[in-house]
Amino acid sequence: MEQSDSTPSPQLENKQFPILSKIDSPSDLRSLPLDKLPALCSEIRKFLISNLSQNPGHFASSMGAVEIIVALHYVFDTPNDRIVYDVGHQAYAHKIITGRRDRFATQRTQGGISGFPSPSESQYDTFTAGHAGNSISAALGMAIADKLTLRNENRKTVAVIGDASISCGLAFEGLNNASNSPNDLLIILNDNDMSIDNNVGALHKYLTELTTSQPYNKLRYKLSNFFHKKGVLDEQGKKRFIRLNNSLKAFISHQQNIFEGLNIRYFGPSDGHDVIRLVKTLQEIKDMKGPRLLHLNTVKGKGFPEAEKDPTTWHAPGKFDPLTGERPGCPDTVTPPKWQDVFGEALVELAKNDENIVAVTAAMPSGTSVSKMMQELPERTFDTGISEGHAVTFAGGLASAGKHPFVAIYSAFLQRGYDNIIHDVAISSLPVTFCIDRAGLVGEDGVTHHGLFDLAYLNCIPGMIVSSPADEETLRNLMLTASKYNGPMAIRYPRGSSNAPAQHPPFRQLEIGKGRIVSEYKNNNTAILTIGPLLNEAIKANQLLPEEKRASIYDLIWLKPLDKELLNEIANQYSHVITLEDGSKIGGFGESVFQYLKQIKPELIVDILAVPDKWVGHATPAQLRRECGIDAQAICDIINREP
Amino acid sequence: MEQSDSTPSPQLENKQFPILSKIDSPSDLRSLPLDKLPALCSEIRKFLISNLSQNPGHFASSMGAVEIIVALHYVFDTPNDRIVYDVGHQAYAHKIITGRRDRFATQRTQGGISGFPSPSESQYDTFTAGHAGNSISAALGMAIADKLTLRNENRKTVAVIGDASISCGLAFEGLNNASNSPNDLLIILNDNDMSIDNNVGALHKYLTELTTSQPYNKLRYKLSNFFHKKGVLDEQGKKRFIRLNNSLKAFISHQQNIFEGLNIRYFGPSDGHDVIRLVKTLQEIKDMKGPRLLHLNTVKGKGFPEAEKDPTTWHAPGKFDPLTGERPGCPDTVTPPKWQDVFGEALVELAKNDENIVAVTAAMPSGTSVSKMMQELPERTFDTGISEGHAVTFAGGLASAGKHPFVAIYSAFLQRGYDNIIHDVAISSLPVTFCIDRAGLVGEDGVTHHGLFDLAYLNCIPGMIVSSPADEETLRNLMLTASKYNGPMAIRYPRGSSNAPAQHPPFRQLEIGKGRIVSEYKNNNTAILTIGPLLNEAIKANQLLPEEKRASIYDLIWLKPLDKELLNEIANQYSHVITLEDGSKIGGFGESVFQYLKQIKPELIVDILAVPDKWVGHATPAQLRRECGIDAQAICDIINREP
Repeated sequence: MEQSDSTPSPQLENKQFPILSKIDSPSDLRSLPLDKLPALCSEIRKFLISNLSQNPGHFASSMGAVEIIVALHYVFDTPNDRIVYDVGHQAYAHKIITGRRDRFATQRTQGGISGFPSPSESQYDTFTAGHAGNSISAALGMAIADKLTLRNENRKTVAVIGDASISCGLAFEGLNNASNSPNDLLIILNDNDMSIDNNVGALHKYLTELTTSQPYNKLRYKLSNFFHKKGVLDEQGKKRFIRLNNSLKAFISHQQNIFEGLNIRYFGPSDGHDVIRLVKTLQEIKDMKGPRLLHLNTVKGKGFPEAEKDPTTWHAPGKFDPLTGERPGCPDTVTPPKWQDVFGEALVELAKNDENIVAVTAAMPSGTSVSKMMQELPERTFDTGISEGHAVTFAGGLASAGKHPFVAIYSAFLQRGYDNIIHDVAISSLPVTFCIDRAGLVGEDGVTHHGLFDLAYLNCIPGMIVSSPADEETLRNLMLTASKYNGPMAIRYPRGSSNAPAQHPPFRQLEIGKGRIVSEYKNNNTAILTIGPLLNEAIKANQLLPEEKRASIYDLIWLKPLDKELLNEIANQYSHVITLEDGSKIGGFGESVFQYLKQIKPELIVDILAVPDKWVGHATPAQLRRECGIDAQAICDIINREP
Repeated sequence: MEQSDSTPSPQLENKQFPILSKIDSPSDLRSLPLDKLPALCSEIRKFLISNLSQNPGHFASSMGAVEIIVALHYVFDTPNDRIVYDVGHQAYAHKIITGRRDRFATQRTQGGISGFPSPSESQYDTFTAGHAGNSISAALGMAIADKLTLRNENRKTVAVIGDASISCGLAFEGLNNASNSPNDLLIILNDNDMSIDNNVGALHKYLTELTTSQPYNKLRYKLSNFFHKKGVLDEQGKKRFIRLNNSLKAFISHQQNIFEGLNIRYFGPSDGHDVIRLVKTLQEIKDMKGPRLLHLNTVKGKGFPEAEKDPTTWHAPGKFDPLTGERPGCPDTVTPPKWQDVFGEALVELAKNDENIVAVTAAMPSGTSVSKMMQELPERTFDTGISEGHAVTFAGGLASAGKHPFVAIYSAFLQRGYDNIIHDVAISSLPVTFCIDRAGLVGEDGVTHHGLFDLAYLNCIPGMIVSSPADEETLRNLMLTASKYNGPMAIRYPRGSSNAPAQHPPFRQLEIGKGRIVSEYKNNNTAILTIGPLLNEAIKANQLLPEEKRASIYDLIWLKPLDKELLNEIANQYSHVITLEDGSKIGGFGESVFQYLKQIKPELIVDILAVPDKWVGHATPAQLRRECGIDAQAICDIINREP
């Protein structure tokens, strides 16, 4: 691959991208004639393929939303009019045409642009995106605020949401409230029949059935145009005709429209890749009053056959050959297994030996590797779709009827099930194991995806056991231990690869609240106490330090309960303790250790290395650990400062 | 009022309650002939009126659900079959007929039964209740668990949910998942057209419209019975006839049934007070396969005219005259104003002077006194219904379009908006003020309603300001301060009455992060540091202590940022610090203060008085403060232990 493919020179770009290279902002786009838009969309796709094949990112969703984004910026007066993207991984085309084309290759790298819309990055990014389902609520707030502020009355707000996101409770709450106060919110339902994994839930089936009534909607649209041309309908009448009345529509199409049941006018479904028709449709409904929803059918991965065929793999495919779609050889064979795979395999092994074990995830079977159990024990594996709250409460119900659910949810998304953990699991001390993937700094996905608060928000819940393994063997043993424990327990582990090569020693039950000695230098001053895989940074620090400065290392494993016996010994032995964790300093492991140690030995020096109290952006995990001062270097710096 | 009314003697009870007095468990109920059920329901209502007029509780909801509960226990084989109540304040009749009749007068008191279903109290209470919307998810978990456990295959599960709860996102997620895996869940929709306050949202209007199609459903039911009697339909055919097919039903009724759109068979609406017909309907649909929903119309407060007329007031009316419905004179004139009213009045005053201020609450305008602003500035006041997540994100949207929302939500319920606070407000540092009512120990509502975790779960969020006023004047000043602050800020205050008599000194802007000296005894050893109204316990402690043992008292006001300058002075001056707060010890105010003080002065003795790491039940707030060791007595005990 030539370098020019990943960072094209301006000259080359002009040749390859004759239209796109001149789009520096949406107003450039709006000055194009309508018939140029299909060519622009092709260029954007080519640009995406060329870039993302080298600088990995969210590919398939962004390929599928090109026409929607181009049409929206063409019809609406952005940034005065606002587009709110749900999740935001579909919004690359938006970034490219809103002044970030030339920085696009920097996305998801330190100092580069974010992989998600980010208000701190651009005035075109109107709201934080990353967690699904917030776009309708946020856009509704904007639309109503504008109605209250008279000078903004004609400002438009559009929410763009996928069919998976719209099934989440937050989105439903937004839909249910959309007609409560005067507003002209437009919701674009980008229906590609997929979330990261296959979509689940009755709403999904419902949307599929809606699509089958397309002939009726086409007819209605064509008829209105026909009558309009014949002069039978004026512009107002044409709009009225298009929207018809709910019962007539239900009568003709034999369908029950949920959205119109919620007082939101429904249009569609239409082809989300016919950019010219899309522009015309948007122009038709742009100035209508009241909340409206336009249902568009799109294909995830559109324009790249490999991705169209296998959109789950191509959700975030990593590097690939832009011509053939070939991806570098399966990394599982060369690098250590991912944490999620260690979890997924152990889950299957445990479940085969314990019929009460069931698995629950919320739209992330691939991401958490719950998919492994889904393949082997499908009837005991539940993917609830994007619905973390329901997933947790549902697990509480399963547990109260004798099952032992393992709930696998990313740390940042489990924040959405917080009350459910407290109210529906912990108060009754139900045996639910929370397997918290993507805990700590996740790297390139950045601020919305780091899982930094779980230790703090779980530690305060009475009766909750909180643990984190430093290696894959401990993860497996914690899972066995959890399966034997008759109450709520959390196991947090990070994104990415574990450190040990794949191996499967027999499961061993651990004593809850019992840490372990990793290495001891009893004649030296310092002890390092870790929880989770940052243990490796402590080990690395020792390798960097001279023998006489090396620290004893203890892997506490458990935040709750803390191993007080071990802490007593450590307090007796050392004058200096350093704690290390991959999570928020406030309310985390270090503060708990500090709290205990300073009560029993006030003169002990305790340094807490944890993520400081600030928002952390995107970069590689190692870069972020450096930035946050939670790596081997940070440990060495402290120890080298000792007298 | 004679004593016999509140605690009837067994003899009297037998005379007043000839049927109910013999119902010691649901099997007694099931041995009654069907035609006795209306009389039993009347007795239960009389029992509720007699009891609740003396021992206040949730009156109107429980009066409205009597027939539903009696019919369910009559038709289903409880406790083998499971009933899951949503929220649970409607379930008093359930408590009365499941062995807790004679302890009913103890409800909500220390050592007595809980006001909500509680699995730790009775095997008939199948799941934790208190927070709205969890019943469908939990019951679905049970129903699917039973399908997986072959010996339990015929065990039935019923979720009982109100029309307000079913509009919340969690319930929608449950509905959306109900048809995903094989199960025979029955959902009873108890539609009384009310939550605590008037219901809001499009789903509510939708349900109202559904009701108007009752004639069609009646016709269908009668026809099926007619054909059955004529021998045209067998039992199976009759069931098939009753359920008909969706499109035919939509065709006849011109309605779009959301539930059937979600693959849940819909029955109803029927009269939820006709207990005999209800039993027959339940018998009809009991053994049907697959998820089903029975829509019942009920009247909140049914059987007590005053409550039927004004169900909001009678949601939890306090003591009343069982004959006339007269309630003791308005307490506002005698006791100090409630915290919520101080908030509500200040909100109106601030909003009148600042057109950007808007108010958001989630189905608690009366409970938070946002109702005051709703009356005066309705277009700037938003009640989103039971949807805390949406309420917070919606506020984020309002804020991003230039408004300054005050979001008033109870502490325990704000747990449901946790991710929304982080993702949709704090990451972009939007100016949203969280007015957290019912923070700390709430008293009689018990374990599900205490607001103990907010300090811990907010403190770890970067950029979040966290405060708590000790008195009403400070609450008002914090609100002004928040309205001028361009970022997220939380103000937490408790349930109940404030301490000062109503007075309105002019608003004063406070310096963020600046505590205050309440009283100083610089020659003594001890300083008490408080946040929030427990300051009064510190003052009381000083009154109980001899002069030479009295402590200096500091009201920190702010948990985040802490007043480090003041803490430095305190560390210099005293050898002993006691912190006092009405919240979880883990992750709370005391630990933050400890953390700072022990770093600057290791030898300082710091005692943290906070709610210990256990679940706290129901009792009066004073009893609970005693139990948790966070009252004046606890302070005196510590100080008296000093050498």
